Amino acid sequence: MEITITREDFLKGLHRIQSIVERRNTTPILTHFLLEATAEEVRISATDLELGFRGTLAAETITPGSLALAARQTYDIVRELSSETPITLTALENNWVQLTADRAVFKIPSLRGDDFPPLPSSEEKDGIEINDQTFREMIGKTIFSISQDETRFALKGALFALHDDEMRMVSSDGHRLAYIRRPHAGIPTPQEVIVPKKALEEIRKLLEESKGEEETSFLGVAGSHLIFKKDDVLLTSRLIEGQFPPYEQVIPRGYEKRALLNREMLLGALKRVSLLSNEK
Amino acid sequence: MEITITREDFLKGLHRIQSIVERRNTTPILTHFLLEATAEEVRISATDLELGFRGTLAAETITPGSLALAARQTYDIVRELSSETPITLTALENNWVQLTADRAVFKIPSLRGDDFPPLPSSEEKDGIEINDQTFREMIGKTIFSISQDETRFALKGALFALHDDEMRMVSSDGHRLAYIRRPHAGIPTPQEVIVPKKALEEIRKLLEESKGEEETSFLGVAGSHLIFKKDDVLLTSRLIEGQFPPYEQVIPRGYEKRALLNREMLLGALKRVSLLSNEK
Repeated sequence: MEITITREDFLKGLHRIQSIVERRNTTPILTHFLLEATAEEVRISATDLELGFRGTLAAETITPGSLALAARQTYDIVRELSSETPITLTALENNWVQLTADRAVFKIPSLRGDDFPPLPSSEEKDGIEINDQTFREMIGKTIFSISQDETRFALKGALFALHDDEMRMVSSDGHRLAYIRRPHAGIPTPQEVIVPKKALEEIRKLLEESKGEEETSFLGVAGSHLIFKKDDVLLTSRLIEGQFPPYEQVIPRGYEKRALLNREMLLGALKRVSLLSNEK
Repeated sequence: MEITITREDFLKGLHRIQSIVERRNTTPILTHFLLEATAEEVRISATDLELGFRGTLAAETITPGSLALAARQTYDIVRELSSETPITLTALENNWVQLTADRAVFKIPSLRGDDFPPLPSSEEKDGIEINDQTFREMIGKTIFSISQDETRFALKGALFALHDDEMRMVSSDGHRLAYIRRPHAGIPTPQEVIVPKKALEEIRKLLEESKGEEETSFLGVAGSHLIFKKDDVLLTSRLIEGQFPPYEQVIPRGYEKRALLNREMLLGALKRVSLLSNEK
């Protein structure tokens, strides 16, 4: 395998996978990312077995092939390459890889690409095109109250529900509950899934790259996995199995008193008061 | 005791002492700072028993007095005060202190000012006026190679030596040695002291506030303490007792080979090579 790529493009791809790859994993291959070079494209993939990521690199294939490189080490190396000359990555014998940029030459070990765990199949079955800004808003307004409690498995993600021309996201840590709904015309099949917090964090990051107001992403379910697709990027996540609590029962239907508050002033007052309430 | 002060001035004083005060100290008073209000000035002091700091606050004394407040908590509170109205600090009964700014009112506990450990006497005996930029350069070129080894006590600081119209600073961690000398006319008494790393870090921070090329600070020794004075600020530090190793013996006197290297290129190459040499 041999490819060439600019430092900037390589760095962009390597940066994206850093939060997927677990730094301290007892399975060596999971601290690595997969590079697959074909005549058509060069793909980069990473997984922690729960989350999976696949994207393309703006690289040129000289010789096709695949191999797995240590995610952190490769990132650190590419970051230190100051030269604007392209980087060449060449597979040598005995799983050694040579990385060359200008007069800097690195020889680093790799693992076999064939040993990399496959990502779940991303066949598009049921799914929707979701507006990126709407999805970002829904994640932002629910992710903070996802439970950290290891014993309450179903609360460790946000419920994402599709029915009656409406999308809903709900999260709760048992003390507070966040709930948002947005209209969405043409839902193929009513569905409810629980999406883990880490997947929502990664999706949120990918959505931050979204520029236009009209941009959309694909969101679907394949078996026990969530499938998120945006441009050349595929993100998969194992869904949380279990029953999300009946959240509608706990939302009050009427209010005896109402007050109108200035957001900034309330925020400032809460910050000041919380300084003393946080004392342990 | 009662004083008024702007948020900005209070924050500046509180920021300076944060690195002196040890957050987790079993002696409660050492997590506090001392406020002393007299008709002439308002002083703020902090100590970890090794290092001592004293400065003045641009505050107005309404009623003189002294008290000690939790350093971290007070800093957090003052930071969250968004108002531009002045802060009033008033001692109440039973060691409670009321902090008022606009409509925000905090009631926080204090300790008695009399219980605060006194800073070492700063009577100016032997000492020099040292140029701030020169001192910063000397600290910067030696602080990195101060030993972290708890067992080599004399190496846990930098040697500061004054003799023969020359100032010298030397540090070593046993593997490498840093050495800088600068001329200084009119040294009263030849002297050699070992200054702890934390004191040099604090002095360096204070020197960073120095603007003009001609600005100087006072540096002297009183008993077993270093005395550093800059404007209204006094910093004291216990000196390290012990014998600094005979550093002159290990500095080579001649060189067989010499090479001239571009600093930036050498730095880049060292960074890239060190990525692989750091592997554990």
